[in-house]
Amino acid sequence: MRALIVDSGQLRLEKHYPDPVVDETTALVQPTCMGICDTDLQLLRGYMDFSGVLGHEFVGVVCQGPEEWLGKRVVADINFACQACDWCARGQQHHCPQRTVMGILNANGVFAESVAIPVSNLLAVPDSVSDDQAVFTEPLAAAFEILEQVSIGKTERVLVLGDGKLGLLCAQAVATTGASVTVWGHHQSKLDRIADRVHGVISPDWEGRPFDVVVEATGTREGLQSAIASVRPKGTVVLKSTVADAHQLSLAPIVIDEILLVGSRCGPFQRALQALDHGEVDVNCLVDYIFEFDQAIEAFEHAGRRGVLKVLLKPELK
Amino acid sequence: MRALIVDSGQLRLEKHYPDPVVDETTALVQPTCMGICDTDLQLLRGYMDFSGVLGHEFVGVVCQGPEEWLGKRVVADINFACQACDWCARGQQHHCPQRTVMGILNANGVFAESVAIPVSNLLAVPDSVSDDQAVFTEPLAAAFEILEQVSIGKTERVLVLGDGKLGLLCAQAVATTGASVTVWGHHQSKLDRIADRVHGVISPDWEGRPFDVVVEATGTREGLQSAIASVRPKGTVVLKSTVADAHQLSLAPIVIDEILLVGSRCGPFQRALQALDHGEVDVNCLVDYIFEFDQAIEAFEHAGRRGVLKVLLKPELK
Repeated sequence: MRALIVDSGQLRLEKHYPDPVVDETTALVQPTCMGICDTDLQLLRGYMDFSGVLGHEFVGVVCQGPEEWLGKRVVADINFACQACDWCARGQQHHCPQRTVMGILNANGVFAESVAIPVSNLLAVPDSVSDDQAVFTEPLAAAFEILEQVSIGKTERVLVLGDGKLGLLCAQAVATTGASVTVWGHHQSKLDRIADRVHGVISPDWEGRPFDVVVEATGTREGLQSAIASVRPKGTVVLKSTVADAHQLSLAPIVIDEILLVGSRCGPFQRALQALDHGEVDVNCLVDYIFEFDQAIEAFEHAGRRGVLKVLLKPELK
Repeated sequence: MRALIVDSGQLRLEKHYPDPVVDETTALVQPTCMGICDTDLQLLRGYMDFSGVLGHEFVGVVCQGPEEWLGKRVVADINFACQACDWCARGQQHHCPQRTVMGILNANGVFAESVAIPVSNLLAVPDSVSDDQAVFTEPLAAAFEILEQVSIGKTERVLVLGDGKLGLLCAQAVATTGASVTVWGHHQSKLDRIADRVHGVISPDWEGRPFDVVVEATGTREGLQSAIASVRPKGTVVLKSTVADAHQLSLAPIVIDEILLVGSRCGPFQRALQALDHGEVDVNCLVDYIFEFDQAIEAFEHAGRRGVLKVLLKPELK
């Protein structure tokens, strides 16, 4: 099959990659739409030391597996857990120490003609949700993880740092609580895309650090320092960016102001699908380019350009 | 009066420092016992840019002020709040933006013959608590702050990193919950001092990161990295050390393992006095040296030496 491979930091499109092996616990899924994530770009730069088929954002159709799933349109949780350890027993499959992660850690991803996925990871996509929307399920679930970890209500003042894909999804997810949400970013054109849902600002002009919760989604080394500087004493900073390399940081303000710092990663897929189903968030506005899968290398070049939001891949453009 | 002054990073004992000015909201207190804290040593190295009378750990006697306090043995919360802002209205005086902090931020400290303290900050010391114990109220309150911020019960496995003064107090405060507490440190002689209350270890030989809560109290740059490496996924790291300068740090593990990082500073004085009153903690075992106030400079030299725990000052040794 055709597959997009990363190997020693090099990206290449293989025409005759081995087909996935399926057993009774897995289903074979043909992706119909795939999304390029910043994590994919980081993996190319060596993050997680990954090699194999890239990709973890997708929607697809089950073409082989249990009868009740055959022909179904699906998305899937990207953490493949052992289902046997204490973590899995407690419903914390995302933290299973034996887990593999699709397209990220010891498991092939979705940038291919087909991918093998544990049946227990599959979720059916509601008919009302289009492929171009369903492909956002994984990053939107990560955004909703914030609400699993931090209690946010209508009276909270929330700042989201970063107007990239993750920032704009986090802002919309938090806005579903009725909280007052401000997004700070460099690009008016990006902020405008969700202007009907949250307040976007280019220049930080807030005084007196009024924010109860600050979500760091800039993906930059400076993001956390800005977050700490914007949150009130005893406030909460949610760290969404994975800035993998070590960098200079002073943590004294965290102690002095007794700030709560919450690391936040994968989230509830079902909640994300529900939000898409009910129109609680707008993901279509985040799509900048759609490429045919055969143009995947070019698609990656676009995805890596400054200012570009979501780039999607499809087996073929009709 | 005699007072121990820090000025441009220099420590000096003044013989004729101006007496404190008292008004109707303050009491004049004569310290009978004072403790040297690592923060004092940091202030000497330039932390907070402090100049004035040093010192914030003390017990003393009220010699001027409201009649109901005259002659009383007291300790005092070190945060002098405005009592007028929103923070103070919510009972969060420790985070009042206008606060001064005794011997740390824009307020003279206790290493002197007398000190002016807001009456609302005073707490009476129970008769059962000796001066040598009561002088630990402030750092012990900071240790108990952990229990105000993090829910710790009998089933939690807690690791305290650091066998210094703060680490040994934190370990004892956490142990009052009935949780299993392990202290990691370099010095068997220090760990032995609280061996009847917690499990002390020299070499970290734990496998599989079993700790639900890790308290970082090493006061070193490496402490946080060790804490992150020892806590389980979704566990809590309590940051007690104020490592003021910026240092190299990778925060990706916080995101990947969804760790909660809690900055923790000043705590509940009343709870600390209660613990001393009921014998829930042993502070006497932490005292290494007691100096006369006139030997304060020499006392500071001892306090700065590696391996030394608490150094106390008294007006005169009887």
